[in-house]
Amino acid sequence: MTRKIIMLDTTLRDGEQVPGAKLNVHQKVEFAQQLKRLQVDMIEAGFPASSEGDFLAVQEIARSVGDAVTITALARAVKGDIDAVYNSIKPAQDPFIHIVLGTSDIHVEKKFNRSKDAVLQQGVDAVKYAKTLLPAVQYSTEDASRSEFEYLWKTIEAVVKAGATIINVPDTVGYAVPEEFGELIRKLNDRLKNLNPDVILSVHCHNDLGLATANTLAAIKNGADKVECTINGLGERAGNTSLEEVVMALKVRENYYQSGTNIKTKELLRTSRLLTYLTGLDVQVNKAITGDNAFAHSSGIHQDGLLKDKQVYEIMSPEEVGADSMELILTARSGRHAFKNAVEKMGFDTNDAEEFEELFAKFLTLADAKKEVYDHDVFYLVTNHRTMDTRNSHLYELESFQVVTNDMYPTATVKLKRGEEIFKESAVGDGPIDALYSVIKTLVGLDVELKDYKINSMSRGKEAIGRVNIRIEYQGKTYSGRAMDTDIIKASAMAFLNGINAVLLDVANESLSLVEQS
Amino acid sequence: MTRKIIMLDTTLRDGEQVPGAKLNVHQKVEFAQQLKRLQVDMIEAGFPASSEGDFLAVQEIARSVGDAVTITALARAVKGDIDAVYNSIKPAQDPFIHIVLGTSDIHVEKKFNRSKDAVLQQGVDAVKYAKTLLPAVQYSTEDASRSEFEYLWKTIEAVVKAGATIINVPDTVGYAVPEEFGELIRKLNDRLKNLNPDVILSVHCHNDLGLATANTLAAIKNGADKVECTINGLGERAGNTSLEEVVMALKVRENYYQSGTNIKTKELLRTSRLLTYLTGLDVQVNKAITGDNAFAHSSGIHQDGLLKDKQVYEIMSPEEVGADSMELILTARSGRHAFKNAVEKMGFDTNDAEEFEELFAKFLTLADAKKEVYDHDVFYLVTNHRTMDTRNSHLYELESFQVVTNDMYPTATVKLKRGEEIFKESAVGDGPIDALYSVIKTLVGLDVELKDYKINSMSRGKEAIGRVNIRIEYQGKTYSGRAMDTDIIKASAMAFLNGINAVLLDVANESLSLVEQS
Repeated sequence: MTRKIIMLDTTLRDGEQVPGAKLNVHQKVEFAQQLKRLQVDMIEAGFPASSEGDFLAVQEIARSVGDAVTITALARAVKGDIDAVYNSIKPAQDPFIHIVLGTSDIHVEKKFNRSKDAVLQQGVDAVKYAKTLLPAVQYSTEDASRSEFEYLWKTIEAVVKAGATIINVPDTVGYAVPEEFGELIRKLNDRLKNLNPDVILSVHCHNDLGLATANTLAAIKNGADKVECTINGLGERAGNTSLEEVVMALKVRENYYQSGTNIKTKELLRTSRLLTYLTGLDVQVNKAITGDNAFAHSSGIHQDGLLKDKQVYEIMSPEEVGADSMELILTARSGRHAFKNAVEKMGFDTNDAEEFEELFAKFLTLADAKKEVYDHDVFYLVTNHRTMDTRNSHLYELESFQVVTNDMYPTATVKLKRGEEIFKESAVGDGPIDALYSVIKTLVGLDVELKDYKINSMSRGKEAIGRVNIRIEYQGKTYSGRAMDTDIIKASAMAFLNGINAVLLDVANESLSLVEQS
Repeated sequence: MTRKIIMLDTTLRDGEQVPGAKLNVHQKVEFAQQLKRLQVDMIEAGFPASSEGDFLAVQEIARSVGDAVTITALARAVKGDIDAVYNSIKPAQDPFIHIVLGTSDIHVEKKFNRSKDAVLQQGVDAVKYAKTLLPAVQYSTEDASRSEFEYLWKTIEAVVKAGATIINVPDTVGYAVPEEFGELIRKLNDRLKNLNPDVILSVHCHNDLGLATANTLAAIKNGADKVECTINGLGERAGNTSLEEVVMALKVRENYYQSGTNIKTKELLRTSRLLTYLTGLDVQVNKAITGDNAFAHSSGIHQDGLLKDKQVYEIMSPEEVGADSMELILTARSGRHAFKNAVEKMGFDTNDAEEFEELFAKFLTLADAKKEVYDHDVFYLVTNHRTMDTRNSHLYELESFQVVTNDMYPTATVKLKRGEEIFKESAVGDGPIDALYSVIKTLVGLDVELKDYKINSMSRGKEAIGRVNIRIEYQGKTYSGRAMDTDIIKASAMAFLNGINAVLLDVANESLSLVEQS
């Protein structure tokens, strides 16, 4: 009999907090909608006590996908955090509160500098308080894999008696190895099922030694009912367990694990690509399941074997993870209906008819220039359009530009539009991008500092699109901008401008949220 | 007592055969020298029967590092392959021949379409023949993890009796899971040590399900004496076991594995970066051990904990893998000696005094422009210089260029030099790169086709350097070119030109090798 494993995705909490991966509310909701299509069982949507922005994002996710997916968010074992979680997730149909508190000597003594009993009591109190708000509460024993076993169990026993419905065992620093971690889970599971068979046992692993997937699978083999993962393994340091690896390992090796998930595997590749697009963080070509080469056989020996029988070198097919459905190629003749389908397939809504016509016009221009339009082009078209949505009259739009680069005097001339106003200026720089950014800075008159510039091509043969990600700092806060274009210079200009517009939007929202709160 | 595990690196064989990772002989030797500094015990240098180029590369590696590192290369179980291996590795001090032949039903029946006995006999004959050439022979039972156990053992027993000194057990398709693979190795080890205690038991894992590191560690725990890995996990499909992950897992969890390696861990990061530079294939930011974020703590909770005690969230230090020694920053005032040190530290020789002066002049120009010069700048400077070495008078050099890009008519003007000749032309294109490549193609008059264009920034804040990798096709053969520059347009021009020069060199060498062979 196959056990059903509950899949929680924490890309939007543990993943999103890594350097360079910050998403705005719109992007988070977009991603959560894709997670819903992927059929994850639960989404950890954020850490609402950390910032107003995080709170609002969790709330929006709870509203938009909380009817189909169980929503949670993270709280430290303090009232303020628990309140923030409750208030942000309550629009969802079946949410739960997630409380985290350390159990290892290192955490208790070094981080909290308190007695073990006092820390345990804090956990119990937190669970009791959370239970006054919601029936479902998850308790995470942080750094469990380095905790003294009897204290770990004592904590679990106490919080279960206080009402915790899920016990999550994290390998917070990625220290565990499969045999050991499997054995820990086996022992905990034996005692837990004896204490209260309804409590769900969960694990949350990190990949510091490259063992997160193996540890998670060992936990499943030894009784874990639920696992926490992220797409592409995104997360603190070396990241979390890759959802795609666990799902496919369970599928390919069902004979061994006797377990399965609800995940719609054909959505795996699309979900991975969406996250890459949104964060600008690539997966390496040899990433298991979702890397560009994951299914590429290059050596002559292998190709020869494959021609004779696919099974010789293939344990799963690219189609299983959705590789076939990635390649939707549109042309200028594809028409409105095909384009609409493509936009919706990428996870965007097309409800705004006026906007859709604007998008379709841009699609026709692109199709003329590129001949073949791929999924990622459609994605870029829509996101570029939406982040550059200048119906908001205080944002800047790139009207036109000219960049001259040579070994002598790289020069940029830029014309920007804001509402009805036109701004125009030229500047010389050390290189084309330096010249371009100097003139844009002068034009917008904001004292932003460029902290990071990253360019990647989204390789599709010679029709490569340049994707530029920038980070800028303004008054101590960091903002990011990204844009894609077949012209890498234009993409660079638009990314910088998107970053500047993000500053302007933030400044505007802050005044707005002050009004709302007062 | 700590067991010493023998580390074989197969980056130059299993890694180098993946799409986009092709290296030239010079680059392979460069990388082999870094592997020697890393103190790997063995290098698998290539598959010499596959091409004349691979044969020559294995030979060069055997010559240049074969005094300190054991060298091997791959052969199918046929005389021609074994001869090619022997002839290419014999300049090394202590080489061995590596023979591979499948043992799974799928391989024997589907790939070879022969009887199990016939295939076994072919393996035995191959080992016997190899033994007439060299005393040390490794036999790989391809697809071992999917093989019927008794046939697998019968094969191993037979080839050991025929003289094989190393038995390598590959999980060719990445199908194994740690508990199962560990158990397989335990059973094989028991019988093997009984048969002949001097035979070395080895494993070679693939990462299709994200389990290569865990499977390799499980094998070590269960008696494997030697493991085969690659840097960055580069290799077919989802790649091979990451050397850096296995090494650090053994180090961090020595209490569990009771095993260690000779690897100089402080060279791990440098080796990983060198491979990235050479292949243009990035590791993702959350790659364990060597990713940019592998040691980055971003969440407030983690940063707070770290300030109190490093152990709270850190199981190993960035210094252990050499992160500290990566940041050597030079300025225009650093002088000749410091620059020379830096060049040598990157693994380049500085024997050619004339060339060194040219490099130093370029360094001063770069230091003036960039203020701070990093390791990767030094690396780019040397490799750019060497690939653009135009003392070879039939190669092209970029004399000057001007690119004008705007929404209307992107235009490029390029002046090239070949020997004393100057070539100059302008062209209009769809975008700046298209214009640039059109004019260069016209100037050199070669009918090359651009197959792939990839641009990446090597991010160091705003001082980013653009790295461009291109692939072009000429008369059915594929060539690659790469270049780096602070100006992404210039880098694009130089990469294309490097690719064209590679075509010209190849055409010249072919005539040369025809002369040599006749």
